[in-house]
This record gives sequence, structure tokens and C-alpha cells, in this order.
Amino acid sequence: MTLSDTPAQIHLPNGFSFSSVAAGIKASGRPDLALVTCSAGTRAAAVFTKNRVVAAPVQVGRAALKRARGRVRALVVNSGNANCATGAAGMAACRQVCREAARHLGVNPTEVFPSSTGIIGVPLPAEKIVVRLPELVAQQAATEEAACQFAQTIMTTDMRPKLASVRFRSRGTEVRLLGIAKGAGMIHPQLATMLVYVLTDVAARTTELKRHLVQTSEETFNCISIDGDTSTNDTVLLLASGQADVRLDQCTKAFNAALLEVCRSLARQIVRDGEGAQHVIRLSVEQAKTREEAKQVARAIAHSALVKTAWAGADPNWGRILAAIGYSGAPVNPARVNIFIGAQQVCRNGSAAHFDQKEAHFHLAQSECDIRVQLGRGRSRLHFYTTDLTAEYVRINADYST
Amino acid sequence: MTLSDTPAQIHLPNGFSFSSVAAGIKASGRPDLALVTCSAGTRAAAVFTKNRVVAAPVQVGRAALKRARGRVRALVVNSGNANCATGAAGMAACRQVCREAARHLGVNPTEVFPSSTGIIGVPLPAEKIVVRLPELVAQQAATEEAACQFAQTIMTTDMRPKLASVRFRSRGTEVRLLGIAKGAGMIHPQLATMLVYVLTDVAARTTELKRHLVQTSEETFNCISIDGDTSTNDTVLLLASGQADVRLDQCTKAFNAALLEVCRSLARQIVRDGEGAQHVIRLSVEQAKTREEAKQVARAIAHSALVKTAWAGADPNWGRILAAIGYSGAPVNPARVNIFIGAQQVCRNGSAAHFDQKEAHFHLAQSECDIRVQLGRGRSRLHFYTTDLTAEYVRINADYST
Repeated sequence: MTLSDTPAQIHLPNGFSFSSVAAGIKASGRPDLALVTCSAGTRAAAVFTKNRVVAAPVQVGRAALKRARGRVRALVVNSGNANCATGAAGMAACRQVCREAARHLGVNPTEVFPSSTGIIGVPLPAEKIVVRLPELVAQQAATEEAACQFAQTIMTTDMRPKLASVRFRSRGTEVRLLGIAKGAGMIHPQLATMLVYVLTDVAARTTELKRHLVQTSEETFNCISIDGDTSTNDTVLLLASGQADVRLDQCTKAFNAALLEVCRSLARQIVRDGEGAQHVIRLSVEQAKTREEAKQVARAIAHSALVKTAWAGADPNWGRILAAIGYSGAPVNPARVNIFIGAQQVCRNGSAAHFDQKEAHFHLAQSECDIRVQLGRGRSRLHFYTTDLTAEYVRINADYST
Repeated sequence: MTLSDTPAQIHLPNGFSFSSVAAGIKASGRPDLALVTCSAGTRAAAVFTKNRVVAAPVQVGRAALKRARGRVRALVVNSGNANCATGAAGMAACRQVCREAARHLGVNPTEVFPSSTGIIGVPLPAEKIVVRLPELVAQQAATEEAACQFAQTIMTTDMRPKLASVRFRSRGTEVRLLGIAKGAGMIHPQLATMLVYVLTDVAARTTELKRHLVQTSEETFNCISIDGDTSTNDTVLLLASGQADVRLDQCTKAFNAALLEVCRSLARQIVRDGEGAQHVIRLSVEQAKTREEAKQVARAIAHSALVKTAWAGADPNWGRILAAIGYSGAPVNPARVNIFIGAQQVCRNGSAAHFDQKEAHFHLAQSECDIRVQLGRGRSRLHFYTTDLTAEYVRINADYST
């Protein structure tokens, strides 16, 4: 199995074509509208934001997937506008885009999956999108270059495009996965969204895809945090074209490993591109009673403003981590808690351990750091990725004045 | 009823004396050890942090109050060291301080209530405290000046001492309340704690005091947030000396109003002194189904890094507030949500309202701002006080390197 984070090593699955244009939704004039088409027989599964405030494309996409029983023939994605908190007009605009795209492609409107990312509360200029659809349909290409352009087009405040690709062989046939994501925070300056698309050419039923996607998302995208804010537009979509002549049930293990690798890579790329982030923290919570408990503790630590500012200062301040564990809601006995920074134990049974402050400071000054917490309650463990909270984060999010 | 925030208008309740010294616990050499003595017959009630990691003085004080059935004759408070995450040695140090203070005062050790605030995870130097106890006992004074000195002594990263005082007449007798607090964040740079002491000369039973204190704390100290981090040492203590010759059950309504005024004033003083805070936000959540639901929503908004950074930039970014309401966990229908900034409605039924951006920006640039949220679910409402999140907050908490 080969994993590649960089566009140079894309393994393009069969059955997908890409095109992008600048439709004038972004004020910058950069590309902001993209189309992906999928061959007939493509099956899809998706997971969405748990926020009760959901954007129009999330509502339309979720309903369409259900009605079409997981059949998808195209994605239409715009950046620069989230089409969220836009009321009935926003729903109508989204449906109009799907309808027009379906007409040009000769498919059913419920087989067109919409996504939007960008500013909240501003009407979506559907007319700017509709007028460019013929051009998008004409320009489609099943090339690495077009896939990379797609990754660029869906960016908002992202510094880098995010792609991950894996291939494996099963029964003499090559199966390919390509993941493309955007996101540099759960929410951006007045801009929303983590969007993730994973394309593969394996042949699969919708229910199989859903099962794999839910499990993998739980271990990857649900185990990252930048600022603790859950977006209104988060979408993870898995598309299987079936062009590889291998059925998913013939390569379940290999496919699951490949999907996990792609999603894990994309999740880490999102954290690394976190707004203002100087340090990526690999946070391990061990000896929890359940995985859910480990996650509860990891989230409390990863959301603590005091812990995150200490990380920004490369300060081995384990007292703040201990305090966050204490208010996490998990029924932890502090006298059984151990904390490690890098290889060093800094807290033993809830009290200070003897450790080299300079070495701990040095470890935390690295671009990627390890923090390990043991709760002394059970055998469950969890790996969580997060960032520090810097003055630069505040500047990015405060100095954007409407 | 007269309310005063400033030391100039202290109404000193009868039955309390104060003294302070510099015992060398703070590296700065400033006063860091204080004693308050109470006349015989004083009754007390307290509420404590809900963090599972609790400092030694919280454990010792809670147990002592229970054993002495609310009888208190003295407080011993040190700043500069939280005596938290200090293990069995920390418990022993705290008990030693109480025992020695009791011996000098000729009272029972369970009648001495201990508090500590400062750095976490460093052994409490009990010997530095014990050696100064005779001096503290000798210097006691029932004066406004000594009370102000007490408020100064318990400060850590606080910029200002925090006092609030109220008096009222009942049956021809004057009843006085004096509240003294410290705290500039739920947790400070490696320093912990909000400490609040409210002294009164009304005569009261422990159970009555407890009932009043729990209710009032819920409406005041539980409705503020600076950084969302719950301290390991938080303590609110209410002491009634009974020297005023009026029983609490003879002036329940007036006393409750006075206690609410004092606690509300101290809570606001703590928020105003919030680390790096430029703006105090008066956040009202209305039309909730229950008070608990209103609090859930208020806390989600007040803890959102994105909302707080928008406030730092005086940015009327209502989309971020709506997104935080959406992930608060309250079963809100976004289409019924209204949001106001100052007098202007900025969000109507979950979508953008027409409003003057400049005026909203101008309102948010004030030192105190009003944000009002209507959930459209019921009749419960809540007032919450919080701050913005500034680059200065990050600097305060990151640039403190061990």
C-alpha cells in the first residue's frame, strides 16, 4: 500500500472527471466553482455536521442521497459562500443549481450532490453558478491536474490544498482511493466548513460504504479539533464508481485500511493547516474505561484555552492539563492520573513528577509534539490531533471586520 | 439599600477582624497571607468548584465545615500557591496550618477555614505560614483599611482588588454585607482560582445560609465565564456573625436582595478584570424552555473561540453566534432564532436581518456591549457575563514559560 500526501503521487480512481472555473463568488476572483462527474453505477455514502444549524446544501444533499438510494452522478461545489442561514431563498438557490446541472448532464436532479463553503448569512448567487455550468460540463477531464485544480478551487482560508491517495491490489486488479479535503478550522473568519470527498473505483453497495465511512470518520475526522467550533456545513462524502472490477466485499480489510490511511492523512493535513497554528499536538488518552470517555477527556484538553495557550508558549504546564481532565465530566480519580510530555513523565498519580523542565520545553517547541495522558480506569485509548492557540489565531479571527 | 463597589464605601459588618502579612510565598514579596477572625456564634455555608481535581484546602475546608456544623471562627488564606496536585504532603501542610492557627486563637481546628490560590503542583511552604501566625493574630483590626488590605493580599494576577458592600435596615437595626473576591480568569497562568468571601452580621442558621448562597451563586458566579476553564480551587464562603441583632428569617427578602447585589457586583468585577479582556459582554438568552437550557446556550456562545475573537475585533459576526447556538446541544430550531447587537436586530428567524453594520460595529467597540439571543422555545431567560478573547490573553497565558 502506498500513501501519498502530495499531488505529485495521485492515484486517480477510474470513473471520475473534474472541472473548475472562477465564477465570481470569491471577491478575490480565484476559482470558486467545481464539478466532479461520476460514471453510471456510482454509489455514495455521506456523514454530515451534527450542528442543528445546517446549511442549505447539507439539507438538500442529505435528502437527495436518501431519495436516490445512494446513487450519485455529479458533485457541484462552490467556495466563497456557505449558503447557510439564508432561509427559503437559500434552499431554492441550491435546488436550482442541482436541477440545472442535472439538465446539462442528462441525469436525475437527486443524483447531483451540492456543497458550499464560505461566508454565512449571505444569499447564494445561483445565477453566477448556473451560467457557468455548460462550460464546466464541457471542460471535464479525468486527469491528475484537474483533480488538483478541484482541491484548489474548494479552498477558502486554507493555506494548502489537501489531497491523499492510496492504491492496493486485490484479485489482480488495482483499487485506487483519492481523498480531497478543505478546512483550516472548524469555522473560518465568517466562513464555514470542513469538506471531504473520497473517491474510489471499488464496486460497493451504499450500505457497505456507509458502514465503512461512519467507522473511519469516527477514528479520524471526529478526533481532530482546531478551535472547538463545529461548522454548519461539514460534509464527508465517499463515492465508489465500481470501475475497478473488484467488489468491496472481496477486499474489505485492504479497503478499510486504505480508507483509514486516506482519511487520517486528510485529518492531519487539516490540523497542520489550522489557523495560526504553530504546533500540532498528538494527544493520546490511555487507560480510559471506554473510547467515548477517552474522547471526552481528549476534547476537554484540546478545547481548553489555557492548555492551548501554554502549548503556544511551549510551556510544560501539566497543571492546566490536569485541571481540564478534572472538569471534563469523566469520573476520573486525580490520584491515578499520569501525564507525559514526549518521553518524560511530568505528573505521577496526580502530583508533580521529577522531570527536566528544559527538555520538556524543548520537546514542546517542535512543530509536532506528543502529550500522553493515562487515566488509570481501563484499557481504552484514543489518538487525537489538535493545535495550539496563538495570538495569530486571534488576529486572523478578530481583525476581519465586516 | 446602598451598593458600593469601591473600598471608600465599605459597610463593615460587626464581628469580623482582619490582618495581613508578606510571608514570602509570592516571589514578588507582596502580602500573601491573611487572617480573618469571626466572633463566637458565627455560622457559615460554602459552595466549591465542581472540578474533580480539587486542591487540598477545598477538601480540608469542606470536611471541617461539615464536622463543625457550619461553625467558623477564622479564615486563613494564602496567595502565591494553590496547594493543588500536591498529594498527601499538601493535605498534611493544610491541616498543620489550620491546627496551628486554632492553637493561637484558642478555637477548634475544624473552626478554621483554609483557602489557597496560586501556582499548581508546587508544595505549600507551611513553615513560612506557621511562623507568621502569632503576628497575624496580634495585628487583627476591625477596620475598613484592614479589610481592604485583605482584598489586596489574596490577589494573584488580578489587576484590581474586588469588594462590594451593602447595608439595609430591618426592625430598626442596620444589617451589613461585605463581599471580597479575587479572580481574573477561572484559571491564571499556572495559577488557580476564584475566591469569594461574603461577611454579614445578620444572625442565621447554617441551613438558611446554604440555601441563600446556592441560589445566589447560581444566578451570579455560575453565570460568568472568561476562558471556560473551571478552576481546582473555586470557593464561595458566606459568614454570618449574628452581631446585628436581627435574625435572617426576620429579613429574608431584604437579605436575599442584598446578597444578590453583592455577589452580582463581585461577579462583574471579576469579568471586568478578565485576563486581556477589552470588552465585557452582557449576554442575554431569552425564550428558552428552561433556565438550564438558556445556560447551555449562553455557555456555548461564551466559550466559542470564534465568537470571542469576533468580539475582540468588534465584528458583528452573528453567523458565528448562530453556529454556536446550533452546536450547544439545546434542541433549537434555527428558523426561530433572533439575535440582537445592542438595540439592532441582526438575525431574524435564522437569517440575516437588514441592519446598519457600522452602528453594530460601533456598539461592539464599547467597553460594555449587549448581545441578546431569542430561542423561540419558551419563557425562560438568563443574564450571562463574559469577555472577548484577545491576543493579549494569549500573550499572558503563553509567554509564561516555566
